[in-house]
Amino acid sequence: MPLSAYAQQGTKVFNAETFKLDNGLEIVVIPNNRAPIVTHMVWYRVGAADETTGKSGIAHFMEHLMFKGSTGLAPGEFSKTVRSLGGNDNAFTSQDYTAYYQSIAVEHLEKVMTMEAGRMRGMAPPLEEVESERKVILEERRQRTDNNPQSRFSEQMGAALYVNHPYGTPIIGWFHEMEKLTWEDAKNFYDKWYGPNNAILVVSGAVTRQQVHEMAQRIYGSLQPITLPPRQRTISPPLHGQPKMILHHPAVRQPVVQRSYRVPSYRQNAKDSLALQVLEEIVGGGPTSRFYKSLVVDQKLATTVSLSYRAESWDDSILIVHAAPAPDIHPEKIEQAIESELRKLVKDGITEDELRDAKTSLQDAAIYARDSLSGPAMIFGYGLATGASVDDIEYWPDQIEKVSAQQILSVAQRYLDPDQKFDHPPVTGYLLPVIVQEEETKE
Amino acid sequence: MPLSAYAQQGTKVFNAETFKLDNGLEIVVIPNNRAPIVTHMVWYRVGAADETTGKSGIAHFMEHLMFKGSTGLAPGEFSKTVRSLGGNDNAFTSQDYTAYYQSIAVEHLEKVMTMEAGRMRGMAPPLEEVESERKVILEERRQRTDNNPQSRFSEQMGAALYVNHPYGTPIIGWFHEMEKLTWEDAKNFYDKWYGPNNAILVVSGAVTRQQVHEMAQRIYGSLQPITLPPRQRTISPPLHGQPKMILHHPAVRQPVVQRSYRVPSYRQNAKDSLALQVLEEIVGGGPTSRFYKSLVVDQKLATTVSLSYRAESWDDSILIVHAAPAPDIHPEKIEQAIESELRKLVKDGITEDELRDAKTSLQDAAIYARDSLSGPAMIFGYGLATGASVDDIEYWPDQIEKVSAQQILSVAQRYLDPDQKFDHPPVTGYLLPVIVQEEETKE
Repeated sequence: MPLSAYAQQGTKVFNAETFKLDNGLEIVVIPNNRAPIVTHMVWYRVGAADETTGKSGIAHFMEHLMFKGSTGLAPGEFSKTVRSLGGNDNAFTSQDYTAYYQSIAVEHLEKVMTMEAGRMRGMAPPLEEVESERKVILEERRQRTDNNPQSRFSEQMGAALYVNHPYGTPIIGWFHEMEKLTWEDAKNFYDKWYGPNNAILVVSGAVTRQQVHEMAQRIYGSLQPITLPPRQRTISPPLHGQPKMILHHPAVRQPVVQRSYRVPSYRQNAKDSLALQVLEEIVGGGPTSRFYKSLVVDQKLATTVSLSYRAESWDDSILIVHAAPAPDIHPEKIEQAIESELRKLVKDGITEDELRDAKTSLQDAAIYARDSLSGPAMIFGYGLATGASVDDIEYWPDQIEKVSAQQILSVAQRYLDPDQKFDHPPVTGYLLPVIVQEEETKE
Repeated sequence: MPLSAYAQQGTKVFNAETFKLDNGLEIVVIPNNRAPIVTHMVWYRVGAADETTGKSGIAHFMEHLMFKGSTGLAPGEFSKTVRSLGGNDNAFTSQDYTAYYQSIAVEHLEKVMTMEAGRMRGMAPPLEEVESERKVILEERRQRTDNNPQSRFSEQMGAALYVNHPYGTPIIGWFHEMEKLTWEDAKNFYDKWYGPNNAILVVSGAVTRQQVHEMAQRIYGSLQPITLPPRQRTISPPLHGQPKMILHHPAVRQPVVQRSYRVPSYRQNAKDSLALQVLEEIVGGGPTSRFYKSLVVDQKLATTVSLSYRAESWDDSILIVHAAPAPDIHPEKIEQAIESELRKLVKDGITEDELRDAKTSLQDAAIYARDSLSGPAMIFGYGLATGASVDDIEYWPDQIEKVSAQQILSVAQRYLDPDQKFDHPPVTGYLLPVIVQEEETKE
């Protein structure tokens, strides 16, 4: 039986066990006994988009500070302990969630759980650690964003796409605001959002529901829930202009043409989101996709092209068409070729063959995802943190199976039609080397 | 003696009398006895840029509500009383200030002053007035912005120019946020910002300092000062991309090409601001200006072109180059012609003749401004509300006189050079009819 046939039977992908402690902590256990190891993740339903205006970067700064001293742990002791036990740990911050994880031998699960519970409500970094960590995040911004033209470009595309919405502010923060972040700012953010009733614990690996339940009850169970504010974000107004962003940068070797669209997230519109996921596979998914065949193979206008869609987002999500023009090809030619492909899509839709292939490929990927420990933990984490249910995740291959060609045509027409006016118009961007500036801006 | 010689003598333009009450109310009296009338204005040092995120439009909503019932006055009674006494009154809101004024026979000054003082701390509109006034501001937005392509265009240009800064939000507010504004929101704003120590009273007309002082002391003097928060606005990050905004609208008959620059306000940099004021006169001031002569008269590329600079702004101000392309002239041609003029300016600067003519014209305008009652009151109001001093205003012609050709060259180079990279790059916009859309977006 081919893997893809699997999904049609309505079987769960991960067979995760889920339950909740009395203090509101949601728990997902994904048993996997291939090796005596475990991935332990805590996801908080808070991210950069929940920051106060003018305090950009505080979510990410707080993530860093979580390693700098908590109940019973000296600064740096958390990670040092994990490493000394043969494991590894890290954390990351998005617009909508912040997550902490450790991968470690199963016998040390209790230890990492104890440490993680300790920093859920008991952060108290020494002030000199706060000062030095601020330097670290500023350096991180310099390295990853300020010295990276693609990041600078994305940041400005984002600001243009998300007017009056926090997604227009970069996760890492604006440098001049980061410089002024204090422990008081971090503590306000922490006290407001970090608590068991705003967290999801995901444990995958050589454990049973029973073991995790007992251990989590003992370790996390005594933490008091917090009073959670609503997730209140500003909303973008309808804007009908066509924004464009051109960035010339001396470090650019390969020009980029990008168009970013605002499209529904899974939380906002599950049906459309599923159709967009299949559309992504057909139009932009690798060397057999429509865009690639047309722009790279047939027309030789671009050396690479992709269309990518992110389903996991609390508010409006993003779909990005990204292309690298072939030498001597003007970015406008690429734009026109992309629009031409989109017009075909909007007019004729997709074929049943394309649909079948895309579904198979997506469903197979879901099955392969089961093999790792961190993969499924990630899927549950970002899914649950952005409004999906456990069933949405378990039966995702079934949901993908139900997407029709008509649905794909419909989302293409409603969100990607180059001849339609949108309330939140896509932003077109060119990232170009400095040397061709004169040629580009003149006729 | 020509008018322009006047300025060189270091004479005050308005001979205004200024003083302050104990409660912090700043008072400016501009005696003018041509007619037995008076203009009475109260300026609050608060505007749309001081709003809380997500509450856009509250400053302007509050301005409307100020007419809807206060201590001793029924809704609508304020304006009705002014009209019944043969006067007229109105109000306006900007990003940085909100002002209320009445023009009336001098014998009724006490009456309007009493009413104005009554609404400085005693607003209490009935809730049904709040509800109906919200409909009024929404309708105002529909009429003036949503149905007006130039306003829609400006709004989006502003959002692109002022990333992460409140000037990127329109003064009237975003429709979806205005819909949700409540009396509680307005009251919070009012209690925070409306008080004698955040206001400037300007009286111009057939009055003496003595009369106004005595009357103001009696009427405004008993109002208690409020605890004022700092004017804390978010700051735009440096962004090096070149943003562009294209808006096609069916109601556009005449296309527009616009480029908006962020430049210092008078408060931020008096010297540069004065140079920009003279530059504005030389480059963009009417049919004898450089832009007009080049683009309209000589090259016949545009039917009109202007460069306008606003000195009165709390934070970064704006300089706008605006042109209407002649029939069949592509907007890019206009852009190139503007850039070419700017390159000349940056390279060669201006001539002494141009400088002399511009100064004379500006200084003459200042002298003529003395003739009206409301003109000088306006000048003091927006000047003082955005950080200028009384002397800055009185000796403005002298200050203009001191601007050198070198200073103008310097501001042109630092703020308008088309080949320079700016931390806050200018935004280029095209406002175009819908019918030419296909031709415009294709090669």
